Amino acid sequence: MIRLHRGLATVCAVLFAAPAIAQTPPTAAPPMFSPLSSLDVHRVVPLPARVTASAGAPFVFTTATRIVADGPSEVTRTAEFFARILRKSAAVPVPVSNRRTPRGARAPRDSAAASGNVVILQLDTVTVQGNEAYTIDISADTLRLVARTPAGLFLATATLRQLLPASVEMEHSAPRNAPAVSVPAGRIVDAPRFAWRGSMLDVARHFFTVDEVKQHIDFMALYKLNRLHLHLTDDQGWRIQIASWPLLTTVGGRSEVGGASGGFYTKADYREIVQYAAARHIIVVPEIDMPGHTNSAIAAYPRLGCSRATPSLFGPDSQPAGVYTGIRVGWSALCADKAITYRFVEDVVRELAAMTPGPYIHIGGDEVEVLSHEQYARFVERAQRLVQKYGKTMIGWEEVGKARLRPGSLAQLWRSDTALLAVKQGNQLIMSPGPRAYLDMKYTAQTELGLRWAGLIELRTAYDWDPATYSPGLTEANIAGVEAPLWTETVKNLGAAQYLLVPRLPAIAEVGWSEQSQRSWEGFRTRIAAHAPRWRLLGINFYASQQVEWVQ
Amino acid sequence: MIRLHRGLATVCAVLFAAPAIAQTPPTAAPPMFSPLSSLDVHRVVPLPARVTASAGAPFVFTTATRIVADGPSEVTRTAEFFARILRKSAAVPVPVSNRRTPRGARAPRDSAAASGNVVILQLDTVTVQGNEAYTIDISADTLRLVARTPAGLFLATATLRQLLPASVEMEHSAPRNAPAVSVPAGRIVDAPRFAWRGSMLDVARHFFTVDEVKQHIDFMALYKLNRLHLHLTDDQGWRIQIASWPLLTTVGGRSEVGGASGGFYTKADYREIVQYAAARHIIVVPEIDMPGHTNSAIAAYPRLGCSRATPSLFGPDSQPAGVYTGIRVGWSALCADKAITYRFVEDVVRELAAMTPGPYIHIGGDEVEVLSHEQYARFVERAQRLVQKYGKTMIGWEEVGKARLRPGSLAQLWRSDTALLAVKQGNQLIMSPGPRAYLDMKYTAQTELGLRWAGLIELRTAYDWDPATYSPGLTEANIAGVEAPLWTETVKNLGAAQYLLVPRLPAIAEVGWSEQSQRSWEGFRTRIAAHAPRWRLLGINFYASQQVEWVQ
Repeated sequence: MIRLHRGLATVCAVLFAAPAIAQTPPTAAPPMFSPLSSLDVHRVVPLPARVTASAGAPFVFTTATRIVADGPSEVTRTAEFFARILRKSAAVPVPVSNRRTPRGARAPRDSAAASGNVVILQLDTVTVQGNEAYTIDISADTLRLVARTPAGLFLATATLRQLLPASVEMEHSAPRNAPAVSVPAGRIVDAPRFAWRGSMLDVARHFFTVDEVKQHIDFMALYKLNRLHLHLTDDQGWRIQIASWPLLTTVGGRSEVGGASGGFYTKADYREIVQYAAARHIIVVPEIDMPGHTNSAIAAYPRLGCSRATPSLFGPDSQPAGVYTGIRVGWSALCADKAITYRFVEDVVRELAAMTPGPYIHIGGDEVEVLSHEQYARFVERAQRLVQKYGKTMIGWEEVGKARLRPGSLAQLWRSDTALLAVKQGNQLIMSPGPRAYLDMKYTAQTELGLRWAGLIELRTAYDWDPATYSPGLTEANIAGVEAPLWTETVKNLGAAQYLLVPRLPAIAEVGWSEQSQRSWEGFRTRIAAHAPRWRLLGINFYASQQVEWVQ
Repeated sequence: MIRLHRGLATVCAVLFAAPAIAQTPPTAAPPMFSPLSSLDVHRVVPLPARVTASAGAPFVFTTATRIVADGPSEVTRTAEFFARILRKSAAVPVPVSNRRTPRGARAPRDSAAASGNVVILQLDTVTVQGNEAYTIDISADTLRLVARTPAGLFLATATLRQLLPASVEMEHSAPRNAPAVSVPAGRIVDAPRFAWRGSMLDVARHFFTVDEVKQHIDFMALYKLNRLHLHLTDDQGWRIQIASWPLLTTVGGRSEVGGASGGFYTKADYREIVQYAAARHIIVVPEIDMPGHTNSAIAAYPRLGCSRATPSLFGPDSQPAGVYTGIRVGWSALCADKAITYRFVEDVVRELAAMTPGPYIHIGGDEVEVLSHEQYARFVERAQRLVQKYGKTMIGWEEVGKARLRPGSLAQLWRSDTALLAVKQGNQLIMSPGPRAYLDMKYTAQTELGLRWAGLIELRTAYDWDPATYSPGLTEANIAGVEAPLWTETVKNLGAAQYLLVPRLPAIAEVGWSEQSQRSWEGFRTRIAAHAPRWRLLGINFYASQQVEWVQ
């Protein structure tokens, strides 16, 4: 953990009082981009741990700027990722070269920068502690990003991207003779408070295309979120191809809330999402919600249920053949005592584990109102064994604390009343409290989209809480991190999702990343205000909360 | 054409002074939706031709409401389309029954309504003139939609949808005991001013997925637009599969502005788009831009060019193998005098005609700066013959007026200086003047997205013009209609497209639909203000122009 600087605000003010118009760069190459105003540099979200000004001249991006990737191919990939942002908008080459330093060695500090105007990305396992920690050192001739891991370097480029003006997001040539963009000289030292910083997308109530999920991943990467939890199955739809149970998708994947035709991810689609996320150092956490929320599976394979006549319970919401397109919860369940149920669970877990490189499988476990306590606990324990059998760590919603948890299994707090059962067993929590982090809640009573059963969540409500003190009986050590679920009963496309996620998801990202003592609502609302132009350029539909004076 | 009522505003005011709280419906079934406020009924865009109040009680939607489709299966499809909107949000059955009336007969006026609370859709070729004209008669027990064609009935449901509160767009059950929604008694008589009301999407500069195009089609249908012009090819990408020239997509489809990987529509994808549009009575107009704007084809098949070394001209914008990802125009062209060029054009036109049920093929023809006048005219005339050979009507950008046009061919005005050449030959124009209808222009100098070479286009600028008087030398008879192009140099996803299209595309829709003497900026800005809640529910990213007092 990085030692935090107390006088952060003051230091920022000094650092960012650097002249708005960049000095002439040392090379004769024409500079690109408009100058960084003081507003631009105050806008980093989540707030970095420590920022220190230095007296020298700023680093100025020019057409001569080049990037050196000092490490294995993953470092080069991150360098290329950042170079593409510069290239597409500035029509400059930004060449990336690779120079391999032996892993584990202390990075050399001077040789690469010898020729000036260079961005260096390098690994350093000696001076940097923490797998996601990084430093950025800015001087007139060198912009040096150092981290212990490629993930840390990627996170450093996310900070650097926010330090550049929003216009870098434009995908066409900047006007000739556009003024230079510069980054004031100084040092940023940063590391996350929590290892788990997640966004959950419910692709079951409404299906989202691979392209939409990729756009969401891009947004997550901009705010240093590192876990994409996909709620892949629910009563209204089954979204992931399972070869041994093909009707799950051909029958169970063809519906969604409102009666449209749904959809599902083939294994190739899922692989595409996983790889796209991995390239941005985001781990996909697949959830198969069990034993409740399983109507789509039972519609496909009625023998998985206990022959309850579910459709007749709900009248016109239900369609023929057991498909459900309403939004009620708690009424469906796999038949907990049948052998076929566990053959089903094992097949699904086995196939899912095989296509998921990340270490987690989420088994749901929430809102089961039609099984006895014993049936429920037995189900969770058997599912947990199967997840472990296939080499993964089990995650479940907080109710899984009613079962005996294995060491390392995680419980996801949402309504708080059963979360301590997991903590008492020594298991950590992912903090997703409904009244703060359920981003499908309306902002105000006037918000058209969203629900309100967990409360109204204006931006400040999503921001202004501390995971460690949220629930009595918890300490920071009990907490793996923070995650913001987006349930999609009312959300039928990416535009609607973004309206509910932005700006609240960046707020949750800062709750998960930045130290509690460093951050404040006033600081956040000032910084996030400057993100609006970038969102508009990226085509992001956001809620212009009146709690913020947005930059026009 | 419908005879227009002069005192429209006054009549509207009388009609819509009907009580905001609906009367108790005649049946005992519980009503659904919240009541229609006077604001709600003032919001129809485009403005209908004539609205007449009557003294009776309003029509109230209840759980007993049923729909009768009186005509062939196309009428039933439209009835089902409208019923789905009611069903998904209200969790009521809204049964649709079919009763076939012999085509061409005068519709019976009373029998279907005998049992009360019924929505009737019927064809009537005797009393209704105009293929897109319709009437809506509203009384306490019957809501009757009458048109000459299924397209007219579909347009009538678009009006009816806007008369219902935005909450009908919600895809989950309305709360129990929600107050009723009603439509005040009266009559709407409506028909379009122009037959051609188009939206053009440039899927070449940035690719848009089938799902994104479908979402755009849904938006068009809400505003009675009836032509989706897809700009399928340009220097930066080739987006439509042509079996006889496979590299067009495997090479030419893999790039876009900014250097991302692009994409293309398979023939199955294209068919899916065409069918989705046809179900909403929208004709897809495919454009293959020729002989300029063809770098993606030449990158795939270099022998189509005249061996100009295009990449070296543009430095870092160009990628290896001739792919171009910048935004300059006018520099590429098919080699106009080679035989292979016309084999290519014929193959493309033949395959495109075979997969396009609509009557039009757009051959582009704009901004060719590297061919002589004679080369250009010869090319257009040969392309025109090929389009006709395969049974289609040719459309080209206004420059095609320099060639000899066949009767019926259409020219699309954009910069106005060559459009009269087509008019003088007796050909009609599609009006897309850059300073009014190019919706990729910025709204104001502060708008981040978009370009500004044709001017800034705030909402009023897009609205406040008359196609018939826009250009000297034109009369209404020269004009087929209006179309708003969206070029996508700066637009990389649907959210960005919507930000530029909404609210300007509804403004252009009204320019194309409503009589000039009936409509006014003040009327439009009042009505469009009430569309914001619907857009938010639909997840649409819109520009909240300060020229409008948006409903919160």
